[in-house]
Amino acid sequence: MTDTGRTTAENAVLALLLEVSSTPKPGNVDREREYPDLRFEDFVTGAVGTLDGFERAADGASLGPAFERAIAGMSQQSGGNTQFGAVLLLMPLVAAAGEGTVTAERASDIVAETTVEDTVAFFTAFDHVDVAVDDPPPDMDDLDVRRGSAAETAIRERGITLAELMDESADRDGLAAEYTNGFARTFAAADAIEAGSGPITDRAAAVFLELLTEEPDTFVVTKHDEATAREVTERAEAVLAGEEAADDLAEELVEREINPGTTADIIAGGLFVALERGLEV
Amino acid sequence: MTDTGRTTAENAVLALLLEVSSTPKPGNVDREREYPDLRFEDFVTGAVGTLDGFERAADGASLGPAFERAIAGMSQQSGGNTQFGAVLLLMPLVAAAGEGTVTAERASDIVAETTVEDTVAFFTAFDHVDVAVDDPPPDMDDLDVRRGSAAETAIRERGITLAELMDESADRDGLAAEYTNGFARTFAAADAIEAGSGPITDRAAAVFLELLTEEPDTFVVTKHDEATAREVTERAEAVLAGEEAADDLAEELVEREINPGTTADIIAGGLFVALERGLEV
Repeated sequence: MTDTGRTTAENAVLALLLEVSSTPKPGNVDREREYPDLRFEDFVTGAVGTLDGFERAADGASLGPAFERAIAGMSQQSGGNTQFGAVLLLMPLVAAAGEGTVTAERASDIVAETTVEDTVAFFTAFDHVDVAVDDPPPDMDDLDVRRGSAAETAIRERGITLAELMDESADRDGLAAEYTNGFARTFAAADAIEAGSGPITDRAAAVFLELLTEEPDTFVVTKHDEATAREVTERAEAVLAGEEAADDLAEELVEREINPGTTADIIAGGLFVALERGLEV
Repeated sequence: MTDTGRTTAENAVLALLLEVSSTPKPGNVDREREYPDLRFEDFVTGAVGTLDGFERAADGASLGPAFERAIAGMSQQSGGNTQFGAVLLLMPLVAAAGEGTVTAERASDIVAETTVEDTVAFFTAFDHVDVAVDDPPPDMDDLDVRRGSAAETAIRERGITLAELMDESADRDGLAAEYTNGFARTFAAADAIEAGSGPITDRAAAVFLELLTEEPDTFVVTKHDEATAREVTERAEAVLAGEEAADDLAEELVEREINPGTTADIIAGGLFVALERGLEV
């Protein structure tokens, strides 16, 4: 509970809603832009659907099963994968906040405490929704997340915890990197949102652009390639330098279906941390 | 619980979110239009804040106290009154749905079962937020809702139930009229939204315009006057006749701060009923 009377789980849902309401966030669905098969209303509905999973995490449930429940709820809309990555990033933050205070240290400890059961549940979450992911490394073929719950035996044989799995992916997945690097970008985003002024959704959109210039978006690398992700970074720099309009870049990236989803996920995480620390809407 | 796994209370929150996401809804805050002091993000935050109150109503709590709790939660954002009317309209519908099925008959029975305690709690809800309302009739001066909880003694002396209070207001308040007339426009809106095709927020915006042509919006009458409300009705007719663009009317009404809030509330009610009956987003 915060001063607003909202529970931790409600703040997590609100963070997802404020993230998708923030505009312009070039390439991503936001209040003013959507794809014919992936709409603003899908994100809104997906966000509401995560509540029960977040409540479980806030109440001390294991990370993996709480995540799987949130994704099952999120998937109850026709757009498919709306917030898989954001929910993944939020889970340890919500679990930490549920204990009292959201800190990077406690969230990292909660990740470190994950078990093989969490990995099984994490894979099972992929049964609910199609997620764009990279092929696994050759020596980890049996741990392709796209196998979903069918990978259970392989997971148990390898005995890999969710923390170990994230560690394996951290060099090519910006969310796994947050899990293993102390949620550095998430808390930096929270700081930047808190330091801003004016409407929260304007602040979040501004911080989104800043994050985009800092590192290539790994979701864009996965869906397209490194060159495309670098181009997005450079174009975001041009916007910040005043050489290009954010709205123009937003139109173009949606047109080309280039959506920097990992960066949006980090904004959702930053919004949650800021809300928990008392950010007023 | 519906097939989506969402609870009744979650569907109520989702209805509020889909309502404000529906655009264009001339004069009202929506995904593409907002006022400097009443923003889209305020509505999103207000919607999330209502959850606990709706959960209580769905669990069988008395209507008035559940409403007051929802409004206390809704008010935890800087925009002030975002969804007071919509929450009022939703309450008996949520209570009916919480028992199993949302029907106009059961919702009306729940209204008829209200007591003086519900009236006291209803007035107390006005302590949390400023709401634009008419002066009461001369013989009901002591029952001015703007007195909030200070009216408790007067309410108890008169022994007026919430159903009786709504009945007194039904001729000048479109939401009180729904309470007393079997929620006719709410269920008609649900039917129309269900009968449509395409994105839910497009359907809801279309039904909003239709409702606007049918009856003057009582919130516009309260904030402005009868003539303004009639003008809005005629302009909405012109939009439906293809003589005026909905977006142009939306821009103009926002500019003139004419917001047909009662009609938007009925859309929120219609969305909730449709979601409960299985509408898929």
